[in-house]
Amino acid sequence: MNYDEQALELHKAFRGKITTAIRDTEPMTKEKLSAYYTPGVAAVSRAIADDETLLPTYTWTNNLVAVISDGSAVLGLGNIGPKGSMPVMEGKSLLFKHFANVDSVPITLDVHTPDEIVNAIKAISSSFGAINLEDIAAPQCFEIEDRLKAELDIPVFHDDQHGTAIVVLAGLINAMKVVGKELKNAKIVAIGAGAAGTAIIKLLHTYGARNIISVDSKGAIGSSRTDLNPEKTALLDFIDGSAQGSLDDVIVDADIFIGVSKPGVLSADMVKKMADKSVIFALSNPLPEIMPDVAKSAGAAVIATGRSDFPNQVNNALAFPAIFRGALDNGVKQITDDHKLAAAEAIASLVENPSAEEVIPSVFHKDLVSTVANVIR
Amino acid sequence: MNYDEQALELHKAFRGKITTAIRDTEPMTKEKLSAYYTPGVAAVSRAIADDETLLPTYTWTNNLVAVISDGSAVLGLGNIGPKGSMPVMEGKSLLFKHFANVDSVPITLDVHTPDEIVNAIKAISSSFGAINLEDIAAPQCFEIEDRLKAELDIPVFHDDQHGTAIVVLAGLINAMKVVGKELKNAKIVAIGAGAAGTAIIKLLHTYGARNIISVDSKGAIGSSRTDLNPEKTALLDFIDGSAQGSLDDVIVDADIFIGVSKPGVLSADMVKKMADKSVIFALSNPLPEIMPDVAKSAGAAVIATGRSDFPNQVNNALAFPAIFRGALDNGVKQITDDHKLAAAEAIASLVENPSAEEVIPSVFHKDLVSTVANVIR
Repeated sequence: MNYDEQALELHKAFRGKITTAIRDTEPMTKEKLSAYYTPGVAAVSRAIADDETLLPTYTWTNNLVAVISDGSAVLGLGNIGPKGSMPVMEGKSLLFKHFANVDSVPITLDVHTPDEIVNAIKAISSSFGAINLEDIAAPQCFEIEDRLKAELDIPVFHDDQHGTAIVVLAGLINAMKVVGKELKNAKIVAIGAGAAGTAIIKLLHTYGARNIISVDSKGAIGSSRTDLNPEKTALLDFIDGSAQGSLDDVIVDADIFIGVSKPGVLSADMVKKMADKSVIFALSNPLPEIMPDVAKSAGAAVIATGRSDFPNQVNNALAFPAIFRGALDNGVKQITDDHKLAAAEAIASLVENPSAEEVIPSVFHKDLVSTVANVIR
Repeated sequence: MNYDEQALELHKAFRGKITTAIRDTEPMTKEKLSAYYTPGVAAVSRAIADDETLLPTYTWTNNLVAVISDGSAVLGLGNIGPKGSMPVMEGKSLLFKHFANVDSVPITLDVHTPDEIVNAIKAISSSFGAINLEDIAAPQCFEIEDRLKAELDIPVFHDDQHGTAIVVLAGLINAMKVVGKELKNAKIVAIGAGAAGTAIIKLLHTYGARNIISVDSKGAIGSSRTDLNPEKTALLDFIDGSAQGSLDDVIVDADIFIGVSKPGVLSADMVKKMADKSVIFALSNPLPEIMPDVAKSAGAAVIATGRSDFPNQVNNALAFPAIFRGALDNGVKQITDDHKLAAAEAIASLVENPSAEEVIPSVFHKDLVSTVANVIR
């Protein structure tokens, strides 16, 4: 049985991945039903109507995240629509439960403009304690997240952007220890300027990195380019706006390569042009921008990918379950840049002795959730 | 500790009523995570994107009902808003799980016009296998349900209307056996022309009743009234449009009284004017239109209320869990009038020997869910 068949069979056997359960596992009595539902529940509803801050005290929203997608940028599959995206969103809900005991509900949206998406999410937002946006295409995802963060009083977090950025930063913090360089002084070349690439660049800038070059399919993003959309123009504030040329041009003397683009775009020759002790985060999945063995032969000192079968997996599950765990438990209303930096430092701290083979901790590290959740407050 | 305090304490102790769980309760391995989430899940998403009818085969939507309210008509509390309504909706989700093992998610909407409500529900509808509308004020609830039924390919059921109507019809079927009359020939006076009252009248008419008088706060609804809204005008097709006068006028010689209005509107004197062997369904809650002992002293033969501490409780939980159980299991896309009639007959059939004390079965009847679910196909 091949891999796809195994996944299909497992999903079919269990008829999906998540279910609901009643918190009170003692036998349900007639008396308790009268407290959980009418007539007793009326007192609970009145209490919340009088003081809406009591919603998390009395309802499951205290532990509840909505995983919301419009299905427009699902994994590497592209725009497969809301129904096609459901298995991925339900999978995310499974990860939330498995790693951090966070309740979560997958919500697939059959609307696709930023206005419609924002309106639909605002309409249902009182049902949840926090919102995890997922697999929404760039550049719409930026506007959607910004508007929801401004208008809602619960945390809103686009995991494809910030989850990835946090784990990349965590890995780079440790990688810099391994190669004995300072991230703030390093020359960083990042290819791919979508949701993840943009968020990585912004978070590295917030951390203090000041020598970042962003490359898209047309080459380096710089002020001389006349084809930039508003989102890429805004990115100029965070990168070396004087950069020009192809990846092959700008990779010279780079300390760090970050790929969130497509398979094979980084060649061994390019790696050879990088600075000594280069660091390669080749995150295209399942096929990276360069295979680890090729990068290593070409002289790279530390290599990370998105895959679980190589060392140093950049896996969002290192971040999102614990970040929402912390936000829910600590009553955090907004995930800020400070939270993201602190989460990256916390994830990095779990690797006691960083080495080329381990700059990123395992997603199964026993202290992961408590350590990261603790800094989200 | 009084009743309200008990409900508040129970809700606080468990931090709400429902939670999520992972269906596969065997230990989660790294390999299984790779099938439930990336990379394996991609095959499942592709399969659904190629054939959307596979959504229930591979995702939890096969067992999932959204309980949706805008909080505009919650219990007897009125318009207490979405957050205030959450405990009631979450309570409904608890009942779904407890009685019929149906997964359900409470969704509270912070939009209030029919257009906004319809748009919000349509936007999220692909996330669910069915929709239970709840505690949405009349007359908006009629338009909202009609539009959603026309536009969605999953069952949409406004429980305040149809759940109540089904259980009332079930009770009346048995009450007519007790008093030896024919429901189709009975003179029926129903007071209250909101969501429940309207649905009861329409379902009784569908069953064959042809002598129904509807009374609202202004008196009998008839063609001579000049103050009728469009919904009440439409009701004229189902009732005796020539009726005029107050409840006290039209109650004369009635065989059946149905109250879904407010406490105390039916007096002992009015009961005395009803036909011999009268049947009283006084469903205002917690205080009925007439107390059972008063109605009995005045000569009523069969009395039902909405309360669990008197015989013959008209409890929607007799209908909605089993109806959705059947719809989900049998792939039913629309709950039709035929389904409602069949459900009422099925509920009625669970009382083996109807008597004045038992025209409605207990919600704990062991065959309830299977018997009712079986006719929804």
